[in-house]
Amino acid sequence: MTHVSPSPTARISLVGAGPGCADLITLRGVRRLQEADVIFYDRLVDPELLALARPGAERVFVGKTPGVAAWSQARINRLLVAAARAGKRVVRLKSGDPGVFGRATEEIAALAEAGFAAEIVPGVTAASAAAAELGRALTDRASGRTLAIVSGHPATGAPPVDFAALARAEATLAIYMGVARAGETARALIAGGAAPATPVDIVERAGAPDARRVATTLGALEAAIRAHGVRNPAILLVAPPRRADAAAPLPAPVPALAG
Amino acid sequence: MTHVSPSPTARISLVGAGPGCADLITLRGVRRLQEADVIFYDRLVDPELLALARPGAERVFVGKTPGVAAWSQARINRLLVAAARAGKRVVRLKSGDPGVFGRATEEIAALAEAGFAAEIVPGVTAASAAAAELGRALTDRASGRTLAIVSGHPATGAPPVDFAALARAEATLAIYMGVARAGETARALIAGGAAPATPVDIVERAGAPDARRVATTLGALEAAIRAHGVRNPAILLVAPPRRADAAAPLPAPVPALAG
Repeated sequence: MTHVSPSPTARISLVGAGPGCADLITLRGVRRLQEADVIFYDRLVDPELLALARPGAERVFVGKTPGVAAWSQARINRLLVAAARAGKRVVRLKSGDPGVFGRATEEIAALAEAGFAAEIVPGVTAASAAAAELGRALTDRASGRTLAIVSGHPATGAPPVDFAALARAEATLAIYMGVARAGETARALIAGGAAPATPVDIVERAGAPDARRVATTLGALEAAIRAHGVRNPAILLVAPPRRADAAAPLPAPVPALAG
Repeated sequence: MTHVSPSPTARISLVGAGPGCADLITLRGVRRLQEADVIFYDRLVDPELLALARPGAERVFVGKTPGVAAWSQARINRLLVAAARAGKRVVRLKSGDPGVFGRATEEIAALAEAGFAAEIVPGVTAASAAAAELGRALTDRASGRTLAIVSGHPATGAPPVDFAALARAEATLAIYMGVARAGETARALIAGGAAPATPVDIVERAGAPDARRVATTLGALEAAIRAHGVRNPAILLVAPPRRADAAAPLPAPVPALAG
């Protein structure tokens, strides 16, 4: 590897850990981990990744523990800024890609306000791992040219997702953090014109060794999630809604890869 | 790394090389490269990646060379099947993530027809690298909860992209292979309700050491591409079209990362 990072002098890196499994991090991400003085990591990060850091590096868990009050974003921001001010090499390790629903903007802004530039080391996002788990592509010629990556979790202050417009756009949908509101999402898509028979694949813990998948339809989505006890982290992959009745079905999963 | 691949017996792997730069491949991708007997690779794959393979491994270029007739997909499929039949460990190395506009479906189907299961090793997709290059997230609370990844290149047989619906959905757009038809795309978005002042960031060779970026607007996109001589591979990152006049601007790029 002789390529250098676009930002070789950065001491603060938001690193994508990839989804679920330690060996889905990038080489650049590994290098940043190995150079770090302190690593701030989330709950969904594979603990094996932390073993790649120097023995003396601090490892600080800043995620949510079920049943325990979550770290506030403001508190995480303060910690990052304090570590940067102390002259440390800081890695903020986020599951998936930091740029996709990773709240990177808040952390970058807090650091910038304190005078620190942060680089982003991109990672494999969960939708890519979910499709890989199913042994198929996220997009193909039959499904069309639009992939909509959507957060199923309503963030305060963010405009709502216009599922009717996405149904009209015939987009393949990858819905992140969508388990809790799956029924609501399915009803919005169906109200927007999607057939209840539209295929949906649920991939739980995409990329992890214990990944699990459930094949269902929009109409049966909520019941399937209940019946199988599906929990986040899970990706819902919805076939292009308007094409549910069309002749071209999604390719069947390759049998040898069935989980 | 004690985790095993979801498909430890697979001899055929479609591996995401990541965008542009060798150190953006995953650890799992590196392992597959090191185990391979033969590697079929595209034009946009960083040549340094091939150095990770065993010295004795065959390296077969199956990409397009400007000015030379491209390998047909059917011919690539035949080569993959022949290598699998010969009992080789096959890596099909694709830039970015194989599941995003990578034509993985055709190759997986051809292999399945011949009785071979192929695994997918996901990779970092170009949109993630483009946002990282700009030092910002693809999605945030201001921009909303929908990221539409769109192919700007019309594939034979694929339904067209409904840019008006995507404009209505207030999606952040990441347009792949969108340089040649940028003017057409911009006009479709504007006709669908997007303001001509909607910000667009063009990132050429996202992830590569010689990445380049151009900031413009939907209305000026075609002229900017001409003026700067932008070429594919490039990603067009379009701010949520309907929110172009809204109060919340996209965060400014971090100055230290300016290319």
